[in-house]
Amino acid sequence: MKCRKCGGQAVLELRRHNAAFCAPDFQEFFRRQVTEAIRKHRMFTREEPVLVAVSGGKDSLALWDVLSDEGYTTTGLYLNLGIFDYSRESRAKCEAFAADRGLKLSVVDVEALVGAPIPEVQHATRRPTCSACGLSKRYLLNKAALEHGFAVVATGHNLDDEAATLFGSTLRWQTDALSRQSPLLPSTHPKLVRRVKPLYRLSELETAAFAFLRGIDYIVDECPFSRGATSLVYKEILNRLEAASPGAKHNFVYGFLERGRAAFEQLENVTLRECARCGQVTTGVLCAFCKLADQVKRAR
Amino acid sequence: MKCRKCGGQAVLELRRHNAAFCAPDFQEFFRRQVTEAIRKHRMFTREEPVLVAVSGGKDSLALWDVLSDEGYTTTGLYLNLGIFDYSRESRAKCEAFAADRGLKLSVVDVEALVGAPIPEVQHATRRPTCSACGLSKRYLLNKAALEHGFAVVATGHNLDDEAATLFGSTLRWQTDALSRQSPLLPSTHPKLVRRVKPLYRLSELETAAFAFLRGIDYIVDECPFSRGATSLVYKEILNRLEAASPGAKHNFVYGFLERGRAAFEQLENVTLRECARCGQVTTGVLCAFCKLADQVKRAR
Repeated sequence: MKCRKCGGQAVLELRRHNAAFCAPDFQEFFRRQVTEAIRKHRMFTREEPVLVAVSGGKDSLALWDVLSDEGYTTTGLYLNLGIFDYSRESRAKCEAFAADRGLKLSVVDVEALVGAPIPEVQHATRRPTCSACGLSKRYLLNKAALEHGFAVVATGHNLDDEAATLFGSTLRWQTDALSRQSPLLPSTHPKLVRRVKPLYRLSELETAAFAFLRGIDYIVDECPFSRGATSLVYKEILNRLEAASPGAKHNFVYGFLERGRAAFEQLENVTLRECARCGQVTTGVLCAFCKLADQVKRAR
Repeated sequence: MKCRKCGGQAVLELRRHNAAFCAPDFQEFFRRQVTEAIRKHRMFTREEPVLVAVSGGKDSLALWDVLSDEGYTTTGLYLNLGIFDYSRESRAKCEAFAADRGLKLSVVDVEALVGAPIPEVQHATRRPTCSACGLSKRYLLNKAALEHGFAVVATGHNLDDEAATLFGSTLRWQTDALSRQSPLLPSTHPKLVRRVKPLYRLSELETAAFAFLRGIDYIVDECPFSRGATSLVYKEILNRLEAASPGAKHNFVYGFLERGRAAFEQLENVTLRECARCGQVTTGVLCAFCKLADQVKRAR
């Protein structure tokens, strides 16, 4: 197998691109996919400081690595979810990564803000654990960005993540979720920062290979609560489709962005207001995070 | 396991309905699903003669059985595709079914109209076999209905068929196909008859059980050309989803009809005209069937 670019020995075959690359050319390809995502969706400029949400996993650290290498001004944000060893270890990975490269890292403690660590939050709500955790992460990321003056938050969601989310929304035809799925969620209210996913063009395999080749020390374990999560069932199904027909995930996500999404955007039209409690953005009177925090308080 | 209706011994569990039925009550349930489909989508009235497309398989014969039992005026239409033993055997099943019940059956020979039997058609076109065959069947059904004065054609597509088709269109975000998928395709042109799918609420397992309990003698073999067909891959994937989460197929198809479809309908707007050669409806100058017949003629 020869590298598409230099003709040397390839280390990685990308079937959906019908290509193979040597280690240096794969890294170049990877970086180009990230910068192409940023350019195509006008995610941010070189002048804008970017808050990068880092979990200690391969995706977010690979993203932070590329953005800082490409000369963007970045600050990492680690949300401490209080999930036992998993949180302790993943935090240490983020801190070591930042220290090695002289990058700034903020740490926000979820327990202090929602009233309990994530393992306890699940007892206080009827939501599945991943749902309460995702809600809290979106809320706290936005809050941290606002407080520190960032106009944009970047997350490490990759092509597999996007395909799995899209798959779940499509199976249930959740038109509100479908109208909002995009690599760029613009700020539609002064209290809502722009959210971007610069890795949406890269598969999980590709981010893992990049992190490995770059010698990034990341946490390999998955969150202990993710076992049995629906998103993992969807990923497994999509992997089987991909094996049968390389490019299936890519076509599903890109086709949605090019043709599907527009259909749902015209259906949805929501009015955003500020939460009566915390002032962050919501479509109701109290935001979902404040309601969750109330449930946690009552349960304690 | 007890029958939901009479409390007697159940013979079939329907997990997505969280119910089980004895043999007579299942048949009653099945018939009610068909009449509910007809009523809900205003497929046809008791006064309209219905042309029922029959293949000799469980679905189309179960459909014909219910419609004639319920007092609708039906005529069966068998398309002889010329697929060796498969066609001979399936035709015999249809003829025996019609003779037993004193029903009228028309037989149309595909070879006479497209210029070759289906096994040869595939050599003349770059389309996959199932695609050329499907195109021919839709065309010839419509033509037969027009010639014999039927305003409506009913086909035996079940919930699994609809879910698989929807799945394929969604994976590629084929917005034109998505805008057209429905249990009722109205006549949008004087030369296009209404097409209806009264079994869309019933799964493959349910039509098989109904055909078995009714003692319908149907062809069990699948078409020899369907091996490896993408639709079978989709069905297998959807069956795994269904096993993990009963009702997934149902929710996918029903959710699409209730919420998804409207989004695509507003996107698509095609103008229908008559084919310059045969006079049937097309969006181009020559219809796809006439182009296919030309390819067959050139290849012979």
